[in-house]
Amino acid sequence: MPAVLHALSDPARLAIVRHLASRDECACGGFDSKLSKATLSHHYRVLREAGVVRTRPDGRMRLLSLRREDLEVRFPGLLEAVLAEQATADKIGARL
Amino acid sequence: MPAVLHALSDPARLAIVRHLASRDECACGGFDSKLSKATLSHHYRVLREAGVVRTRPDGRMRLLSLRREDLEVRFPGLLEAVLAEQATADKIGARL
Repeated sequence: MPAVLHALSDPARLAIVRHLASRDECACGGFDSKLSKATLSHHYRVLREAGVVRTRPDGRMRLLSLRREDLEVRFPGLLEAVLAEQATADKIGARL
Repeated sequence: MPAVLHALSDPARLAIVRHLASRDECACGGFDSKLSKATLSHHYRVLREAGVVRTRPDGRMRLLSLRREDLEVRFPGLLEAVLAEQATADKIGARL
């Protein structure tokens, strides 16, 4: 639990998780982000090591996806609570 | 949200939150902990600044309590998910 909460406690990593929540899979380089490739790689690694995302190779790309079911089994309601808050924050035009 | 998740991403702070979850208020010095007073104070401060706990003076003591309702309004379901996982971890005798 601490590792998962830590992984989600960074605004950039939260943004990645939110992005993935609305998709099946996403190419690792596919984020429209001002972060450097090295910084993005770091965030992917933290998320992967905490069990929040998985990556799989596909030709020359690596595809990233959210481990929704695994998270729900280990931490029921947690991801939903995190994503719900993001939706609320979007609605009122600010990140809380 | 990132600040709250960060506050909850430390095992000692999670233990404090869990302790408070079963009580109304608790004296700041009342935790049976191997942590130093300075370390406990640091954890209280992180939790307080993230809006997870509040403290109020009572004579020479400071009483600590969980801001359950405030958290539920800002992040519906989050605290419940965090506490539920703790209960599960206790049941199986391990912190995940």
